[in-house]
Amino acid sequence: MGLKLYEELADEIAAMIANKLLLPGERIASVRQQHVRRGVSPATVFQAYYLLEARGLIVARPRSGYYVAPQRAALAPEPEASQPAGASTRVDVSELVFEVLGAAGARDIVPFGSAFPSPLLFPMARLARCVAGSMRRLDPWSTVADLPQGNAELRRQIALRYQRDGAQVASDEIVITNGALEALNLCLQAVTRPGDAVLIESPSFYAGLQALERLDLVAIEIATSPRDGIDLAALAEALARHRPKACWLMTSFQNPLGGLMPPEKKRALVALLAEHEVPLIEDDVYGELYFGAQRPAHSKSFDSKGLVMHCSSFSKSLAPGFRVGWAAPGRYARAVERLRLTTSLAAALPSQLALADYLGQGAYERHLRQLRLALAGQQQQMLEAIAVHFPAGTRVTRPQGGYFVWVELPKGVDALALHRSALRHGISVAPGPIFSANRAFGNCLRLNYGHIWDETHEAAIATLGRLAAAQL
Amino acid sequence: MGLKLYEELADEIAAMIANKLLLPGERIASVRQQHVRRGVSPATVFQAYYLLEARGLIVARPRSGYYVAPQRAALAPEPEASQPAGASTRVDVSELVFEVLGAAGARDIVPFGSAFPSPLLFPMARLARCVAGSMRRLDPWSTVADLPQGNAELRRQIALRYQRDGAQVASDEIVITNGALEALNLCLQAVTRPGDAVLIESPSFYAGLQALERLDLVAIEIATSPRDGIDLAALAEALARHRPKACWLMTSFQNPLGGLMPPEKKRALVALLAEHEVPLIEDDVYGELYFGAQRPAHSKSFDSKGLVMHCSSFSKSLAPGFRVGWAAPGRYARAVERLRLTTSLAAALPSQLALADYLGQGAYERHLRQLRLALAGQQQQMLEAIAVHFPAGTRVTRPQGGYFVWVELPKGVDALALHRSALRHGISVAPGPIFSANRAFGNCLRLNYGHIWDETHEAAIATLGRLAAAQL
Repeated sequence: MGLKLYEELADEIAAMIANKLLLPGERIASVRQQHVRRGVSPATVFQAYYLLEARGLIVARPRSGYYVAPQRAALAPEPEASQPAGASTRVDVSELVFEVLGAAGARDIVPFGSAFPSPLLFPMARLARCVAGSMRRLDPWSTVADLPQGNAELRRQIALRYQRDGAQVASDEIVITNGALEALNLCLQAVTRPGDAVLIESPSFYAGLQALERLDLVAIEIATSPRDGIDLAALAEALARHRPKACWLMTSFQNPLGGLMPPEKKRALVALLAEHEVPLIEDDVYGELYFGAQRPAHSKSFDSKGLVMHCSSFSKSLAPGFRVGWAAPGRYARAVERLRLTTSLAAALPSQLALADYLGQGAYERHLRQLRLALAGQQQQMLEAIAVHFPAGTRVTRPQGGYFVWVELPKGVDALALHRSALRHGISVAPGPIFSANRAFGNCLRLNYGHIWDETHEAAIATLGRLAAAQL
Repeated sequence: MGLKLYEELADEIAAMIANKLLLPGERIASVRQQHVRRGVSPATVFQAYYLLEARGLIVARPRSGYYVAPQRAALAPEPEASQPAGASTRVDVSELVFEVLGAAGARDIVPFGSAFPSPLLFPMARLARCVAGSMRRLDPWSTVADLPQGNAELRRQIALRYQRDGAQVASDEIVITNGALEALNLCLQAVTRPGDAVLIESPSFYAGLQALERLDLVAIEIATSPRDGIDLAALAEALARHRPKACWLMTSFQNPLGGLMPPEKKRALVALLAEHEVPLIEDDVYGELYFGAQRPAHSKSFDSKGLVMHCSSFSKSLAPGFRVGWAAPGRYARAVERLRLTTSLAAALPSQLALADYLGQGAYERHLRQLRLALAGQQQQMLEAIAVHFPAGTRVTRPQGGYFVWVELPKGVDALALHRSALRHGISVAPGPIFSANRAFGNCLRLNYGHIWDETHEAAIATLGRLAAAQL
């Protein structure tokens, strides 16, 4: 298949930027000018510009037009891979997490510490119509029949997406859950007993740490690159040394770093774990939020032994609040299904039916394209603001998807103190120590760019930069 | 407040039955005859007859009219209280439960083994309109703001119901969960550690046994009367002897026995547990399904120390499949809320909003009245069929609410064998051993009368009776 017209146009402009025919900060031709000059429709020009924006090559400025993005070199550099101590750790992070999250919940706060993207980015009106329509057509018996595994049509729609993305998952393998968090918890319970060791990334998502804490498991934190994920050599060593019962990773747009494991690395990861017969719990809730040309591969697609337990949801990509997630737990599918039956029985039917209906209408891809463009643009704006306002020596990740950047401030900045002073200025942040069983990352922050960028956000980044600098 | 006209008429007929002016099996005056004879409206006569039916005094026979119910003595007698061994038991019942439930799920089976009442008894069309309406009015930010504890309006509506029923529960104490099962699991986790002892009824609900099994807890089964619940003397002894960390009971219409603890016994229970500082996890999912004049008291209303963790849901009384339950966990409220946040984050918003809307409309009471009448009538029909068809020596409970009877067949009947042979005849039952950590109750069955009674059900009871007799 050849390139589409807008892709050709985008590539041509990208080449002009690469070749310095267009310079950073320079205004590029307006949609109308391109339309007249090249004889292509305004819609085609718009699509090309959206694509360039998503790639971070151009930026839109409201009521002014499109500009070549500032030079990459002008952005803060990326941080190095983490270097955790390697010792095993009983987890005790919950109190700190609750303190931070509790403080960040208010609606009038700048939500850089939030775990969620803006609800305004989701098709709530259309989803409401899907809920209404599917409930009107409800077969009362489905309130019982859909219990064991979840609604059959929803599982079929999810299985179709796996297939399209190159992973073979039968709809019978899928267990619908109350969001991905329940799926991950059930998968973890299905393969561990209290006292077992579990390998995780460093830093890693605090809800994962809390799950380990609740189930009395021992966390082994593995060195992880903010660019391409966990260090496989360190992982191999830990597998031999700690004999873990599971490995829990986010292989695409890891929370909080944003790293993306390339397909070949995922293949090697799956092979390595298969050697040791260790199941991989793959938390993939951000997988659909890629800014590149195609969806990142699932580790699942390299799995021939049924050891990959893939977990995801619609909460971050389509329907926040609906609490519909799922696990495709490979050889552990029946064990996970049974745990689900005895812990919460089933996911809510109105939510399941609405999503099955929505997916069947084929509107998901269009929504996702818009969502990805919005997030990519917001990331660019946050990175530029950080480059301008944060103290020298700051490093920032540049994820190719998701809605978090990870900021490494100069040594000497105390992220927990920064979190508390920022709150007094009406700004939430997620301080580094909540992402580590060892309370490491004391000078780091996770910042959420999942909200529509405006002057308040720009000012908040300036305030954060000032507060950080004041600590030095 | 004086009696309503239909209540007066019902009392008059009840007196005639008590005084043998109307005899068991005798046809009573038709609605039309009463209307003409007494000058009251047909609707009033219908209401009176429904009430008498709910009290078990008369029965309707399709296309034939109303008859005085068979004499109570003609029904099978009630079973005695259980006599568990008293030893502590590691639980291992899951495989058996899954075997039984897996077999009973098909739609074309007579669902005496089901845990659910007929979905046709619920106002699904009206609920669908509530879902549609509340989603149309959705504030997108509520997808985030409602996360920590659940939707505020729903919690307020639930708190209002507690107040009306004589229990003081602030809406801030309430944690919305994915059905009562999640609430119970979270409450149990909040107060126990692996290896702890938990006091339960004997027999008791298998999902409770499975929860103990999953959390590595030790079950102490306490003697329980099918009429008025757990034996307080046995409970006091076990409290002293086993130093349990929790007591998990169904104090109203216990599953599977159907027993109802009178208010004074509940008060004594709460006082006894308070002496030992042992929390009571009160599973009250059937509390709204009473056939008497008013809702059974909550143990919560006798609790001054915050030790009662009251759990319930709308799944059995209003909205099956919506998966909305809650806990009012007293002094453990924050602990339960935090566990919920780390295990499944939140309950589905469309379900919560729809139920808040429905409750606000004030339609719940009317629906509940109809539901209770339907269940009471169906119980009467099942009891009569059992009296006719089951072998001599059979004992059956006569619960004052809920939708289960507990059948004690003559010694020598093997309920598990009966379950398997019944399945071959297209009939499911819930055999006694799934309700015990010790696989006791080998000659008992739990039968569900929550489905609209018809000839198939009558024939199925006859088949069950024949199969049981054949074993003797």
